[in-house]
Amino acid sequence: MHLSALEKAEILVEALPYIKEFYGRTVVIKYGGAAMAKCDLKQKIMQDIVLMKYVGMNPIVVHGGGPEITQMLKRLGLKSEFVNGLRVTDRSTMEVVEMVLGGKVNKEIVAGLNANGGQAIGISGKDGSLIKARPVGDTAQMGYVGEVVQINPGIIETLIANNYIPVIAPIGIDENQDSYNINADLVASAIAAAMKADKLVLLTDVPGLLKDARDPSTLISVLKLSDVDQYIKDGTIAGGMLPKVDCCLEAVRAGVGRTHIIDGRVPHAILLEIFTKEGIGTMVVDE
Amino acid sequence: MHLSALEKAEILVEALPYIKEFYGRTVVIKYGGAAMAKCDLKQKIMQDIVLMKYVGMNPIVVHGGGPEITQMLKRLGLKSEFVNGLRVTDRSTMEVVEMVLGGKVNKEIVAGLNANGGQAIGISGKDGSLIKARPVGDTAQMGYVGEVVQINPGIIETLIANNYIPVIAPIGIDENQDSYNINADLVASAIAAAMKADKLVLLTDVPGLLKDARDPSTLISVLKLSDVDQYIKDGTIAGGMLPKVDCCLEAVRAGVGRTHIIDGRVPHAILLEIFTKEGIGTMVVDE
Amino acid sequence: MHLSALEKAEILVEALPYIKEFYGRTVVIKYGGAAMAKCDLKQKIMQDIVLMKYVGMNPIVVHGGGPEITQMLKRLGLKSEFVNGLRVTDRSTMEVVEMVLGGKVNKEIVAGLNANGGQAIGISGKDGSLIKARPVGDTAQMGYVGEVVQINPGIIETLIANNYIPVIAPIGIDENQDSYNINADLVASAIAAAMKADKLVLLTDVPGLLKDARDPSTLISVLKLSDVDQYIKDGTIAGGMLPKVDCCLEAVRAGVGRTHIIDGRVPHAILLEIFTKEGIGTMVVDE
Amino acid sequence: MHLSALEKAEILVEALPYIKEFYGRTVVIKYGGAAMAKCDLKQKIMQDIVLMKYVGMNPIVVHGGGPEITQMLKRLGLKSEFVNGLRVTDRSTMEVVEMVLGGKVNKEIVAGLNANGGQAIGISGKDGSLIKARPVGDTAQMGYVGEVVQINPGIIETLIANNYIPVIAPIGIDENQDSYNINADLVASAIAAAMKADKLVLLTDVPGLLKDARDPSTLISVLKLSDVDQYIKDGTIAGGMLPKVDCCLEAVRAGVGRTHIIDGRVPHAILLEIFTKEGIGTMVVDE
Amino acid sequence: MHLSALEKAEILVEALPYIKEFYGRTVVIKYGGAAMAKCDLKQKIMQDIVLMKYVGMNPIVVHGGGPEITQMLKRLGLKSEFVNGLRVTDRSTMEVVEMVLGGKVNKEIVAGLNANGGQAIGISGKDGSLIKARPVGDTAQMGYVGEVVQINPGIIETLIANNYIPVIAPIGIDENQDSYNINADLVASAIAAAMKADKLVLLTDVPGLLKDARDPSTLISVLKLSDVDQYIKDGTIAGGMLPKVDCCLEAVRAGVGRTHIIDGRVPHAILLEIFTKEGIGTMVVDE
Amino acid sequence: MHLSALEKAEILVEALPYIKEFYGRTVVIKYGGAAMAKCDLKQKIMQDIVLMKYVGMNPIVVHGGGPEITQMLKRLGLKSEFVNGLRVTDRSTMEVVEMVLGGKVNKEIVAGLNANGGQAIGISGKDGSLIKARPVGDTAQMGYVGEVVQINPGIIETLIANNYIPVIAPIGIDENQDSYNINADLVASAIAAAMKADKLVLLTDVPGLLKDARDPSTLISVLKLSDVDQYIKDGTIAGGMLPKVDCCLEAVRAGVGRTHIIDGRVPHAILLEIFTKEGIGTMVVDE
Repeated sequence: MHLSALEKAEILVEALPYIKEFYGRTVVIKYGGAAMAKCDLKQKIMQDIVLMKYVGMNPIVVHGGGPEITQMLKRLGLKSEFVNGLRVTDRSTMEVVEMVLGGKVNKEIVAGLNANGGQAIGISGKDGSLIKARPVGDTAQMGYVGEVVQINPGIIETLIANNYIPVIAPIGIDENQDSYNINADLVASAIAAAMKADKLVLLTDVPGLLKDARDPSTLISVLKLSDVDQYIKDGTIAGGMLPKVDCCLEAVRAGVGRTHIIDGRVPHAILLEIFTKEGIGTMVVDE
Repeated sequence: MHLSALEKAEILVEALPYIKEFYGRTVVIKYGGAAMAKCDLKQKIMQDIVLMKYVGMNPIVVHGGGPEITQMLKRLGLKSEFVNGLRVTDRSTMEVVEMVLGGKVNKEIVAGLNANGGQAIGISGKDGSLIKARPVGDTAQMGYVGEVVQINPGIIETLIANNYIPVIAPIGIDENQDSYNINADLVASAIAAAMKADKLVLLTDVPGLLKDARDPSTLISVLKLSDVDQYIKDGTIAGGMLPKVDCCLEAVRAGVGRTHIIDGRVPHAILLEIFTKEGIGTMVVDE
Repeated sequence: MHLSALEKAEILVEALPYIKEFYGRTVVIKYGGAAMAKCDLKQKIMQDIVLMKYVGMNPIVVHGGGPEITQMLKRLGLKSEFVNGLRVTDRSTMEVVEMVLGGKVNKEIVAGLNANGGQAIGISGKDGSLIKARPVGDTAQMGYVGEVVQINPGIIETLIANNYIPVIAPIGIDENQDSYNINADLVASAIAAAMKADKLVLLTDVPGLLKDARDPSTLISVLKLSDVDQYIKDGTIAGGMLPKVDCCLEAVRAGVGRTHIIDGRVPHAILLEIFTKEGIGTMVVDE
Repeated sequence: MHLSALEKAEILVEALPYIKEFYGRTVVIKYGGAAMAKCDLKQKIMQDIVLMKYVGMNPIVVHGGGPEITQMLKRLGLKSEFVNGLRVTDRSTMEVVEMVLGGKVNKEIVAGLNANGGQAIGISGKDGSLIKARPVGDTAQMGYVGEVVQINPGIIETLIANNYIPVIAPIGIDENQDSYNINADLVASAIAAAMKADKLVLLTDVPGLLKDARDPSTLISVLKLSDVDQYIKDGTIAGGMLPKVDCCLEAVRAGVGRTHIIDGRVPHAILLEIFTKEGIGTMVVDE
Repeated sequence: MHLSALEKAEILVEALPYIKEFYGRTVVIKYGGAAMAKCDLKQKIMQDIVLMKYVGMNPIVVHGGGPEITQMLKRLGLKSEFVNGLRVTDRSTMEVVEMVLGGKVNKEIVAGLNANGGQAIGISGKDGSLIKARPVGDTAQMGYVGEVVQINPGIIETLIANNYIPVIAPIGIDENQDSYNINADLVASAIAAAMKADKLVLLTDVPGLLKDARDPSTLISVLKLSDVDQYIKDGTIAGGMLPKVDCCLEAVRAGVGRTHIIDGRVPHAILLEIFTKEGIGTMVVDE
Repeated sequence: MHLSALEKAEILVEALPYIKEFYGRTVVIKYGGAAMAKCDLKQKIMQDIVLMKYVGMNPIVVHGGGPEITQMLKRLGLKSEFVNGLRVTDRSTMEVVEMVLGGKVNKEIVAGLNANGGQAIGISGKDGSLIKARPVGDTAQMGYVGEVVQINPGIIETLIANNYIPVIAPIGIDENQDSYNINADLVASAIAAAMKADKLVLLTDVPGLLKDARDPSTLISVLKLSDVDQYIKDGTIAGGMLPKVDCCLEAVRAGVGRTHIIDGRVPHAILLEIFTKEGIGTMVVDE
């Protein structure tokens, strides 16, 4: 594709209605999976987020980092064990989780955004006591796997008010100063709720919710709350999709305008969601 | 040209470095000529200016309106007379100038910007005593043809600080409350100087300064002050181009970053100037 | 009358209680009729409004301009036609209305206020999308005669917050960017309502509402809502007074503190209304 | 004199140029003498100062109180002794000075201003460490008679920024927390200098500086610095006028725009000075 | 006691939880009695209040001054007469009250706070019309003894917002500009209520409310509203303690967090109340 | 030592002059060595820093973490190699440095400060592009060992203005997005310079600069620039003390008020430095 400058200008102008619509809006993005692992996808996501900032939106990034954690545990001779999709997290595992998420993954995203012209600041849930957590499930078995008790959004508001892009590692802290490993989708949902965000976008490695998991053409574009039970019963919503749908519903109920499960493997997935009429992936709404 | 959503997203992202570069910058645009007369060009200019605002620039529009004035004078049975390219402006002509520029052209531009999602406010040099003027040349002959004595930019600053796009009719006022018809290029240049604008863009009906006026391929992309005298002597800068070059030089000397004479007949001329590496037309610099 | 400086000082001090009472108050003034046509009355009104600003009030001016429109239409060979007191406004008439109101009358008032030490800014209902309008009555017959659908007072608030006096031409705009000629009383009333003004003052060419239209001594100083029906039935409120009383009642119902129909032919009518205990003209109240 | 409402309105409007000229200006008023002692004069001064505030000026009042001090000393059986016009101030006298100035005179003025619609706050030089003082002359003989070492204007700026009228008792404090009785003219001059006031007005019991002290028609309207020496030599400036002229000159040299010695016995003396072209009394200028 | 620097640092750190707890809190202190009369106690109170300011609290001081008033009346040959514990206050007594409280006591406290590093401003209830009062009881008998009708807290808010410590003399004013002598406890309570203070502290000359007035070991640490009636019946709450308990209850009912009656004779009584777990004296709560 | 509440109050009040002196001051603390390794010392440092914040100072923490890095490298089977006291940092070592400093040490300090009542935010030099770095010395040999090119203090100013305590990991970034391991003393010095801090405190494991390294009684309390050369010649300043003295001198030359090398092994070392007259350790001054 070779376009003249004029053709490019036309396309910029085409984006104007979307830019106008989203001006001043807060968008929480859960960033993880293939979109984080593949270098070219990562670069495109960084560009998308910085662009969002420059055209007047307030993006907030929450990231995961499971594969990097697994890899580092392996290098240290520690084993990765999962129960119901949750990583069993004893104290030494938790230490590695914090180092990898807060010291490596978080700062790589920050550097990537800054390299593309953004002004990003990376924090974890410990900073400014952002994420108050508690253990989830059987502590003896699961260790420091946590869930969100409360979001204290002061530092996010400060960063946004000063034109920074907040990048958040999903680590919580309890009143004993113990750290917790929390699922990034849950954190993104809770932060979107606390910030009364206009949009929550969960980047995944699937095209969205599919009626037939093997057939992308069976994408459910809009998932209504009233249909959720049926879809769970018939197995359409299952496995890893269950908690994601849940995160979206929680956010919508807490006042978040729109929630989306989109395919992070698609280049510029976030821009496509925002700047095209149809959007991509599945939008979950509370109806 | 049919582009996929992805291709469009790529093009948006291509614009990011330019958006970043111009974020927060003030750009004064002299709007007139063919770009104002032709409906499709006009629509594109409106879009360009609103886009500039949404991606963080502060556009200020100064407009002309000669043809509309001539037409109204004709309808009223008044004759249009020119001396050295300046309209002889007696009191009844001045009344028509004010009505046409301030009541018709100015408000049409305002409505056009607002229809494209902007928040424009149209004023003349009388509002907030913005443009203090005095007669230029032989008053007995020329009447109320004026030049800028002083810009009082308070109202422009107020409008920009409140996210409005100022649209300015080039009418000045003297201490006796007499109105003056001032060339729009002069007003744009004086306002750019008073606002310490980063850029002044004069829209014209030519591709820029040409070595051979009949051959667009002889465009002088960068005109240095040091070359101006020679170009005047050899007739390269002549006719209507003379005062335009002058306006640019005055602005540059007063601290305006960049000044441009560009072809308003090119669709999206302003965006092309700003969002492409080469720019278009002639850039006048003080070297 | 020759007064010593001391006597003048005494009179200034007499005004203190009124100045104190109206400090920080918003007053919308519909300016039209004889007060606009006669040069000496006009100068006094300008002084009154500027004085209001300097002693801490926030005056907002809405002006008419019927005679100037009629005169210009005549010069252009267009006929002025009225149905039920409303000007039939086809597209070419509307163009003239806009030019005369927005380009001539509006800017003359601005210049007059500025010449008396004010800082006025003239806008129309197009600026900042201030007045959203729709056609009133039979479009085929009446053309672009409009009524107010919504006031978007952002620009007025911005101007007041920055110490400017807003001067507003009564032109509205609909979603198709069509302009409408709206009665200035209606616009003044709607703006007073939107701004929750403390006072609305309609300048007219009569002493107020008279029981006997030929006898000024029969002035009704206070008109209560509860008496309106009776006064309409018995013909006391009739003709041009009907819509004016209506405008006042609409404003009062929308929360405007006081509304007044006063005689613009009386020199310094506005000051007299504000700075004397009795006021002048008819005050319309919702009781 | 019986004036119609209209005639009164005309006079208000006459004041407009003066109101405009002094809008936002800071005026320090030394209040004392007959203007303080006589009930009707006092009331007029209160009105003048409140009016100044309402029409946009920032008046600052510094007051004396010699007669009240003398009277209270007498009631307490303490004698009043003067050397070169300065009150010998031992510790018990100083205690009385503070009580009378800070507790009685100061609060009476505050109440008077508030009763006329002002918002006055009374402080002494101890509050906010406003006036740093040191003894003047022979301490053994004169005791706690002080002069200004430094003005710390923070509290005055705070009060003005919050729309209050500061009323200041001329008491200073040194680093040992000892209080000093300072001449009110000196304090007014020092505060005018520290505030870069636009005007300093000293109210006195004479018409101004007279060539012939017995003949008011010999008033020197403008006293130039260059003439002061000669006037001192020939005895024109003598006695109590000497320190007053000095105060004015010090203020002018420190950047105060205008300084005036006026007759506080003239009703509305301050307004007359400000709102009439000629002013009253003697203006001292640094030429 | 000789402590090493380290031991002192430990103690500072011990205070941290209290500093944290009271950060940003507003505390109204009624200052009077022995704490005001004895030089060393006074110095300690000044230090306590300044320290409170520096560690982030907003102290507001309301002071009495009965003994100084009595002494000055005596020197002036005026007699002090009391009815039910209230000073009979005729016009000349009131004049002395104002001078002593506003001119002497108030400014001494201000100077004391400033000498310890504070920035205090002394005002009375006349300043900024802070305390609107009315006569209490039989005017003919009691004269200008007043009670609080309304607190107009604007000036206190201004002073606090600008980092000053307000020091308030308990003098009120009515609409006739008459001054009133008001009990300082009442004023402190009313100001605490108007400011929605977090704490009201009344300094007294007793250890608090005692079951047996002669035995300090019978201190009632917490007095509940529900027990008040019984304590009044059995004479535990009697004499001067009755109005103090009343002031506390009024404040608590108006939303003041905590109210305390403490022993001003204990050195650093205020700090002890705030910085120790047990506090001192009697806390009155609405339960 | 058992102290009464009163004795503790006295000690708080003793601190008042120091609190006053340091109110609003910015203090950069390099935190490392034994003060970081020992649990009880760490707790005391956390308390000191939080206390500083509550009494009005603006502490900024820069931390090291060498031992933790060495330990993690060992666990990962990577060797720690040093040349001239600098850690040879190849790419895999740098990755570990970032994880340990940014993900573990930094967040532990943040949690420690928050647990003591602070509001800390942990960032590295990547966040907000805070620390621009370049390689120091022979890249081939030393790898990613860096020095500070530029501090971009925007994020620190934002955090301080919003009452947070910034905690900074000494990692820099160059224009190729490569990370650098920078000595924490150097970073502390550069940040103190960029913030025009009032004080820079380097915590070490020695009592300060000693004339005889084995004899603490030979402490040099004040080290003047003019004596540095001599002390280097005679070996007094040597080894690890050389770069620390250098950091102090660089900071002083850049306008930092005071710089200190103190013994972090002393409990509450920072408070002792600030809150005692003599301070502790060695103060380095530019004389």
